[in-house]
Amino acid sequence: MLRKGETICAPATSAGGALAVIRISGPQSFAIAERIFFPSDKDVDINKQSGHTVIHGEIRYEGEIIDKVLVTLFRAPRSYTGEDSVEISCHASTYIITRILELLLSNGALAALPGEFTQKAFFSGKMDLSQAEAVADLVASSSKAAHDIAMNQMRGGFSAEIAKLRAELLKFASLIELELDFGEEDVEFADRQELKAIILKAKELTDHLAASFRMGNAIKKGIPVAITGKPNSGKSTLLNALLNEEKAIVSEIPGTTRDAIEDVIIINGVEYRFIDTAGLRDTSDMIENLGIRKTHEMIEKSAVVLFVEDVMDEVEEINRRISNVREILKGSEASLIILLNKIDLLSDVKTGSLVAQIMIGKGESLLLISAKEKKGLDDLRQEVGRMAMKKQLRPEDVIITNLRHYEALSRVSESLGRIISGIDEKSPEDLIAIDLRQAIHYLGEVTGEITTDEILESIFRHFCIGK
Amino acid sequence: MLRKGETICAPATSAGGALAVIRISGPQSFAIAERIFFPSDKDVDINKQSGHTVIHGEIRYEGEIIDKVLVTLFRAPRSYTGEDSVEISCHASTYIITRILELLLSNGALAALPGEFTQKAFFSGKMDLSQAEAVADLVASSSKAAHDIAMNQMRGGFSAEIAKLRAELLKFASLIELELDFGEEDVEFADRQELKAIILKAKELTDHLAASFRMGNAIKKGIPVAITGKPNSGKSTLLNALLNEEKAIVSEIPGTTRDAIEDVIIINGVEYRFIDTAGLRDTSDMIENLGIRKTHEMIEKSAVVLFVEDVMDEVEEINRRISNVREILKGSEASLIILLNKIDLLSDVKTGSLVAQIMIGKGESLLLISAKEKKGLDDLRQEVGRMAMKKQLRPEDVIITNLRHYEALSRVSESLGRIISGIDEKSPEDLIAIDLRQAIHYLGEVTGEITTDEILESIFRHFCIGK
Repeated sequence: MLRKGETICAPATSAGGALAVIRISGPQSFAIAERIFFPSDKDVDINKQSGHTVIHGEIRYEGEIIDKVLVTLFRAPRSYTGEDSVEISCHASTYIITRILELLLSNGALAALPGEFTQKAFFSGKMDLSQAEAVADLVASSSKAAHDIAMNQMRGGFSAEIAKLRAELLKFASLIELELDFGEEDVEFADRQELKAIILKAKELTDHLAASFRMGNAIKKGIPVAITGKPNSGKSTLLNALLNEEKAIVSEIPGTTRDAIEDVIIINGVEYRFIDTAGLRDTSDMIENLGIRKTHEMIEKSAVVLFVEDVMDEVEEINRRISNVREILKGSEASLIILLNKIDLLSDVKTGSLVAQIMIGKGESLLLISAKEKKGLDDLRQEVGRMAMKKQLRPEDVIITNLRHYEALSRVSESLGRIISGIDEKSPEDLIAIDLRQAIHYLGEVTGEITTDEILESIFRHFCIGK
Repeated sequence: MLRKGETICAPATSAGGALAVIRISGPQSFAIAERIFFPSDKDVDINKQSGHTVIHGEIRYEGEIIDKVLVTLFRAPRSYTGEDSVEISCHASTYIITRILELLLSNGALAALPGEFTQKAFFSGKMDLSQAEAVADLVASSSKAAHDIAMNQMRGGFSAEIAKLRAELLKFASLIELELDFGEEDVEFADRQELKAIILKAKELTDHLAASFRMGNAIKKGIPVAITGKPNSGKSTLLNALLNEEKAIVSEIPGTTRDAIEDVIIINGVEYRFIDTAGLRDTSDMIENLGIRKTHEMIEKSAVVLFVEDVMDEVEEINRRISNVREILKGSEASLIILLNKIDLLSDVKTGSLVAQIMIGKGESLLLISAKEKKGLDDLRQEVGRMAMKKQLRPEDVIITNLRHYEALSRVSESLGRIISGIDEKSPEDLIAIDLRQAIHYLGEVTGEITTDEILESIFRHFCIGK
């Protein structure tokens, strides 16, 4: 898939703003740019300019001016890709962007494939594979937690952990190999318990990283929170109340949109996807019909379930519905928060007596709110955050978010497990060595020391074009 | 509205691509950037760097790395705004963009108002007002014709025409003022017919420019083409056939979308908005029900009406429907193209005999097509282009697209008209001088020599933020 020696181009920004940036990278970048770009200062020769300079001028085709632009030059190896690169900053008109791309293509550049710029950076040794993957996560990050994880990974935090693991395994390998050299003499240079301790430590590290995947993936994609409850219990009012308090600069960035069915709320820097299960269907009684598979699934897959109840209802009814929900949640890992809504309609005394009669299970929470009067919403937000983050993973920890890494680490863990039983069962050194080689192989796949075209293609396919 | 001496910031690209650019402009640009940006090369001091250079580094807040970025420095007056400016090129994550903007704001920058960067360029004399307005048109342009008009205006084509007009009027003014100075002696320095010739020429130029507005505005917004005809005559098939042949790089630029009701087709570099009137309502017989106001209006407002007929229908029926449409179009400026569709179902002989019986009016066209088999579509496209462009305005002419300019020029024309009658009726010089001053005033409004806060606000309000 790598088109080495080729010069590629693509828009790196989306349409809709004031400016657009078109990227070119490869050995012909300067030569191609020179054919279509005419500096305002006629004495400027872009081939003689040093890297990291910006030149004002015009993109022209047969005398016609396509746009007045700024062109930024990067000389190898001091560029994102490590190759000669040129960035054209033009007006963000679809006509102009299209025309400039056409001109670049007709002058010998190839249209970049998704992630091809980052792939070039990987092949020129600018970053390892897990760092390259972090770039895509960084671009997609929309909360502090997701950003911090991706940034940590891009800066090499994850690579450092992998290197630590590898060092442990190499230490073990050198001892095993020594024993293999003297195989026939049946010597033991290393104490078996000492060897086992090294592998146990390595396995612990592997398992710890692999275990972080569940939370990491949730942070990356947004932690799912289901809102459910019978009709008119105030689910939509609650969701709107939570959303309306969010006033961010984000809304001023052109092109930011929200998903129609899910609403995203950020609590303490972590993104939560609030799913109004009522939006899924509109039968007369949501709870009575919870047997419906889809709603079931939504609730089961959530990290937190908000169950909204109307304080004006009979307490027996409320308790019955809560136990229904609890039944559905049995076996899932979702935490239940029971919300007694519309407390503005009830006196404090009555509220107190109601709360006393509600049956709350272990690990569940009960909160009093008024969605209409926006009471109790801060407590609710904090409780959602607390429930979801029970496992106490901090974003500054090395957390993996990537299925590919998770699978590789799981395989490393399996190999290490086999080595441990091998030691216990006094297996021959050469069998242990096979498992060891496998573990080291899978670690190499994570950082890209060992790659196949298949791995590369599946990674970069998910990038956007222009990155 | 101008916040002089203030440093402003805004994202200049929209979310969704790989990269985002954040712009900062104003005297504090470097100082503010320095507080949040840390160059990778620790010896680099951005205050000592020359303009038009790019520096790699990190945006940090309290030790936390927000992003690895490229920062481009521009020193006054060599920047878009004419002020010191900084552009930050970061990863296009909404979290990162938001955080960087927050950091800039907390360090003393103000959030830019729509068009404020261009407004600064206007106030620093980088461009006149009509050029500034052209920037917004350029960014919005999505066809070659709209682009060419905006580019011509941005490069000063329109300003040059206005300057020519002004020169004519000033020539006249100097003569009139001379006569006013000697007012009591009742001398005539200039031949009245010579004076009248100057004003007639100026009025001709004004009227020519004003007249270009109708076409210019249509080119800018897309020329409306209505597709109508009875149900099942093949309107949707035709529209889809026209659309499917359009394969452009545009679709690869993230964020480009099409309007749901209208479909845009570009013919010879001009944008046409095809409106399927069937989409407006779904009664059993569109033509019988054409009394409906909305459909009426859509058709009347179009530059071209495509009337689709089914060749399998009775010729009397077809002729009756055509004369119905013709009735509706009476008084409108729309051109009618009659399309005999489904010719694949008819032999050549039968087709010829059908065509001979169709009554075609003056200025109307008749084309034979098969939307299903994509026959005759090229001819159709060219005919639409020919019909719409009857007035033979070429995009390289100076064409106005801006309602504000049109209104100002209309007022100039009125004033000039009064001067001409004044000369004919031998009005006193001081009355003529009043009209002259008005004409010069309105010309000044176009280029921005004369501005009010109101004018400025209404112009820049329509810009996007970051431009």
